[in-house]
Amino acid sequence: MNYKLTIAYEGTRYQGWEHQPGRPTVQGKLEEVLEKFQGAPAEVIGAGRTDAGVHARAMVANVHLDTACSPEELKAYMNRYLPEDISVNACSIAADGFHARYKAIGKCYAYHCWYGDRKPVFDRRTLWVLEKQPDLEAMREAAAYLLGEQDFRSFCGNPKFKKSTVRRLTAIEISQSKERITLSFEGSGFLQNMVRILTGTLLEVGWGKRRPEDIPAILAARDRSAAGVTAPPQGLTLMRVDY
Amino acid sequence: MNYKLTIAYEGTRYQGWEHQPGRPTVQGKLEEVLEKFQGAPAEVIGAGRTDAGVHARAMVANVHLDTACSPEELKAYMNRYLPEDISVNACSIAADGFHARYKAIGKCYAYHCWYGDRKPVFDRRTLWVLEKQPDLEAMREAAAYLLGEQDFRSFCGNPKFKKSTVRRLTAIEISQSKERITLSFEGSGFLQNMVRILTGTLLEVGWGKRRPEDIPAILAARDRSAAGVTAPPQGLTLMRVDY
Repeated sequence: MNYKLTIAYEGTRYQGWEHQPGRPTVQGKLEEVLEKFQGAPAEVIGAGRTDAGVHARAMVANVHLDTACSPEELKAYMNRYLPEDISVNACSIAADGFHARYKAIGKCYAYHCWYGDRKPVFDRRTLWVLEKQPDLEAMREAAAYLLGEQDFRSFCGNPKFKKSTVRRLTAIEISQSKERITLSFEGSGFLQNMVRILTGTLLEVGWGKRRPEDIPAILAARDRSAAGVTAPPQGLTLMRVDY
Repeated sequence: MNYKLTIAYEGTRYQGWEHQPGRPTVQGKLEEVLEKFQGAPAEVIGAGRTDAGVHARAMVANVHLDTACSPEELKAYMNRYLPEDISVNACSIAADGFHARYKAIGKCYAYHCWYGDRKPVFDRRTLWVLEKQPDLEAMREAAAYLLGEQDFRSFCGNPKFKKSTVRRLTAIEISQSKERITLSFEGSGFLQNMVRILTGTLLEVGWGKRRPEDIPAILAARDRSAAGVTAPPQGLTLMRVDY
C-alpha cells in the first residue's frame, strides 16, 4: 500500500532531509520508525530535500509499506515514536503511482527575517535576524524581474549541477508584520539553495548594495558569483507542496 | 542611576531567574553583562523569580549603576552581549526609590497547553502537550471559585513558606485557539509554583478527575496535597508586571 504523509518539522537538530549514515536527518528518522512499524526497511520519498537547519510546515512524502493498515493507525504510530520536532500532520492512502517528488507540480517556501530593537527570543530558530533595515519597495521591484520561466543558474548552489536550471517562479510576496519580514516564493520547482540565494540577493537590493534593475544581468550571467549571499538556513520553511 | 529594564527570555536553557553559582540563570547572565559594562558587580532586582524552564515576555527588573549612561546605550550594550534567548526590550531611567519587586502591584501569567492530532514542532518549548482533551467550561466554573482574596496555601509549592499565603486573584481567563489552550492568571502576587499548581488542578477538573465545586474545599484545606499536579514549567510565561 502506498501512503501519502504530510510532515512538519523543526530542522534545527537535523542535517537536512536526506538520510546520511550516522547523522540525524528527517528522512532517516521517518524510515527508522517505519522500519520498526513493518519489521522491514522502508523508503520514504520526499517532495524535495531540505538543507540542514531548514524547516517544513507541510513537506509531502510517500512510502510503500508491505503491511496494510489504516492511515489513522500509521499516523498515530509514527507520532508516538517520532521525536517531538517531527510530526505527521496528515496521512492518507495514495494511488500506487503517486510519487511525492515526480508528481509535485509546485512548491511554496517562506523565508522569515527579523529586524528590530527587540530580539526574537522565542522564534529565533526560524528567523534570520537582520542587522540593517531593508527597503521592501526596492526588494519588490527586484522580485518582479525574477518572475516567470527563466534560467536560474546564477541562483543554484550546486556548481556541478548538470540538468536544466530553468524554473518558473509564479509569485514572490514580500510582507512585514511588526519586526517580522517574510519573503514567500511560489514556483514549479527550486534548485539547491535557490530560495536562500534569491533571499540573500533581494536583501542586498533592500540594503542598497544592488539596484532592482541589476536582476536581469544577474540572471543572464548564469553564474553563481553574479548573485548575492546565501541567506542562512534557519530562516527557511517549506510551506506547501502542490500536486 | 536606577534603571528599569523590561526583559524577555526563553527559559529553556536556564535554571530559572535567580542566580546560583556555577549554573546558568537569567539574573546571572544579566549581572554578568552589567558587571562587564560598569567594571564592577551589579545587582539586578527582578519583579519575581521564575522557575527553571519558565519563560517571560515582559519581566521587569531594576539595577543601580555607578556609571550614568543613556537608557538607549545601556539597552544596546546589553542586547549585544546577552545570549540570543534573553532580550532587553525596554530600558528607562527610574526614580531612585523604584524597586522592581516591592513596587509591583500585580502580575499576569499565561500557561499554554496544546491538545490535538498535530504535534507542536515549532512551539513545543513553550507548551504543555496534553494527552486528553479538557472540558473548558468545567475549568471556567472551577476558576470562578479561585477569584478574590483567599488563602492559597494549598497552591504553594514551598511547604516551609512562613509568610502569609493570602493573595488576590483578579482574573482567570481560559481560551482556545485551534490546538492551543491558554489559561491566563492576573493577581496581586503569586506564591512559588502557584500558577502551575492552579493550572494542574484546573486541568484535573477539565479531565473530570475533580468537580468545579471541589475547589472551595481544596482552598480550605490549606494543604498542598489537597490540590492537583504541578503543571510542567515550559508551559508557563510571565506576561506582564504592573506597578
